[in-house]
This record gives sequence, C-alpha cells and structure tokens, in this order.
Amino acid sequence: MKVQSKKLEGVVNAFATLPGIGKKSALRIAIHLLADNTDKKSIFKEAVEALEGVRNCSCCYNLSDEEICAICKDPRRNASVVCVVEHIQDIMAIEETGQFNGLYHVLGGVISPIEGIGPDDLHIESLLSRVKRGNVREIIMAVSPTIDGETTIYYLSQKLGELDVSVSQIARGVAFGGELQYTDEITLGRSILARIPYAINGKS
Amino acid sequence: MKVQSKKLEGVVNAFATLPGIGKKSALRIAIHLLADNTDKKSIFKEAVEALEGVRNCSCCYNLSDEEICAICKDPRRNASVVCVVEHIQDIMAIEETGQFNGLYHVLGGVISPIEGIGPDDLHIESLLSRVKRGNVREIIMAVSPTIDGETTIYYLSQKLGELDVSVSQIARGVAFGGELQYTDEITLGRSILARIPYAINGKS
Repeated sequence: MKVQSKKLEGVVNAFATLPGIGKKSALRIAIHLLADNTDKKSIFKEAVEALEGVRNCSCCYNLSDEEICAICKDPRRNASVVCVVEHIQDIMAIEETGQFNGLYHVLGGVISPIEGIGPDDLHIESLLSRVKRGNVREIIMAVSPTIDGETTIYYLSQKLGELDVSVSQIARGVAFGGELQYTDEITLGRSILARIPYAINGKS
Repeated sequence: MKVQSKKLEGVVNAFATLPGIGKKSALRIAIHLLADNTDKKSIFKEAVEALEGVRNCSCCYNLSDEEICAICKDPRRNASVVCVVEHIQDIMAIEETGQFNGLYHVLGGVISPIEGIGPDDLHIESLLSRVKRGNVREIIMAVSPTIDGETTIYYLSQKLGELDVSVSQIARGVAFGGELQYTDEITLGRSILARIPYAINGKS
C-alpha cells in the first residue's frame, strides 16, 4: 500500500501497531475518520486522552477511575471471598456471568519460567497482605488451565496454606455446547473424576 | 462486556465506532494502549491530530498533505491520460500494480439513484473542467463493474463525448488465478467477446 500523504501514512502506521489491526484495516480506519465529520475525530482524540486518567485499583488491580474500584467499594458484595484472576478482562468475563458476588484480585499474569516471569513480577505480595488483614475467608483460583497456570496455583496455595484461609479452584470439565468426542482426554478424565450428582432444577 | 471504569468505557465506545472493530476488539486495543508505555499513546494521539492536516488534492481529489498531491505534481507522469476511479483506495491499488503512469481523478462514488447520489454529488464537473483545459487526451474509466458503475460510465462518456478526448475502460475478463467454472456468465461472455490475440512475451 503506497500512501501519497506522509501524514496519512503516519496515522496508518500508528493504527497498524494496535493488536488485530493490519495495514489495510488501518488505512480503512484512517480514511473513515477523514471522511467523517470532524466531531468523531475529536471524540476519538479525547477518548485516547481519557486513558491517562484510568489507573489500577490499589486494592485488587482492576481498572478504575478512582483509587478504589467500583467492585471493591460496593458494600453489597461479599468481601470474605476473593477470586484470583490473571487479567482484567477475566473480571469482565466473570461479571458477565452474574454468578459471583465476591471481590477480585488481578495477578497480572502467571508464573512462567520460560518467559522469565517470577512471583515477584505478579501481584502476589498484595494478595497475601489482603488475606493477612483478616477479612478474607476463601480464595477462588480462576486461573487458566495451562502448565503455567497450574504452577501459579500451586505456588499461591503453598503461600496461602500458611494463612487462615480456604483455597478453591473453579471447576474444570466439559464446556457447555462442546461435543464429547472432541474434548481432550485430560479434561474428559478430570470431568469424570469430578462428577457431581445429577440435579433437577438445581436440587439434588 | 461490563467495564467498571467510565473513562475506559468511553475509550472502548470510541474505538468500537471504527469500521471493522467490535466491542471486544475495542476493549483489547484500549487495554493494550493502557498497558503499553505512554509513548505509544502520545504517538497515537499525535497521529489522530495529524489527520487534520490531510486534505484532498485540489486537482484530482486524492489525499494529500499539500494543495496539489504528489502524483499530480510529478513531472515524470503522463498528464495527457487521466484514470477515473471511485475511491482514494483505488488509486493506491492501481499504483501498486506499477502499470500506470498517468494521472487520476477521484469521483468520490458512483451515480446511484437508490442511494440518492446524483452527478452533482460527485467530482464530475471538475473532471470536465480538467478536460476542457485541453491537456487531457484520454480518459480511462476504472469504475466498479456494477449497475451503478456502468450508469456512471455511460453518463460520463456522454458528457465527455462533447469534448475532444478519447474514452476507454479497463478490461473486464476472467481474473488471474480464478477458475473458469466459477466465473459468472456475464464476465465469461464478455471475456470471450473481448478476446485478444495470444502473445508470447507480450509480442503478438
């Protein structure tokens, strides 16, 4: 793609650095912004400026406009249960289910010796401090079921074992809508071992 | 997707208005920009600001940083041949081929009675003025082979017929790499009627 305008080329290159956007999409976006009324361009510019104001919640590391995020501040939520996740997006995904009423703690990743990520690179110390403060009764591990994820859960449960808190992890099993024959053998095996009594209308 | 930060929500909504970007991609981009060093965010902001400086070439309506675009200004190009295209992107596509050395004229769309686009909504008057100025000897129609495209070519050729200029249109035929059995009957029919002598190494 040969762009005659140097300025436009700069815009295209800037957009093309974003995840999931190639040169052609970037050009399409830039031309769209050009063709559009000037209002959208300024809304867009203001939006990127607004990013400066977004920070991490000092308690759970969720994204927040203020010192403490809306979830941590909410008095209707159960502060005795903390769900440990890797990323901010995981909070959004769990909130979407409407099945969890506790608080969160974002690790910021998982322990990965290959990528050189150790326990000190994650928000583990602050999680232990939260538990030591004494309000937390249960920690739910909602970390990806990968080797690194399992390592992280193991490390965390060792550290938490010294404290007065119970540790659980989200159930692993056959995904809803999935076909049994295409499920990998580890998932299927675990799902048989962790079988639960059949319940009609949620009653067992 | 429930975003706790109102500011972040604004950024996500702004990104989601761009073509080809949904809410989830917008969130991914926003979190990417947040996690990244501040440098990228400012480069990005500057890029969007730079869009204000991009304008249409006053001669051919291509995008340009200056009054006259780089193609129109280039003395090595053949100013007697003008290729008429619908969109700016078409110029980039043709430039990519390296097969055309003339100038361009961007119509800004095609005549479309259904969408309420008439000849006055396109850059037709300025094309006629260019021809009237007397330097143009050939007009090549490189407009989409649709009903509206054909209507536009017909209208333009009528108008240009009154002037001293020859009108051609880009060849239509079987696309390179396409399979004959999957080519539509109109294209295939035209491609047989418009057959050319077989030439080895471009010599007939």
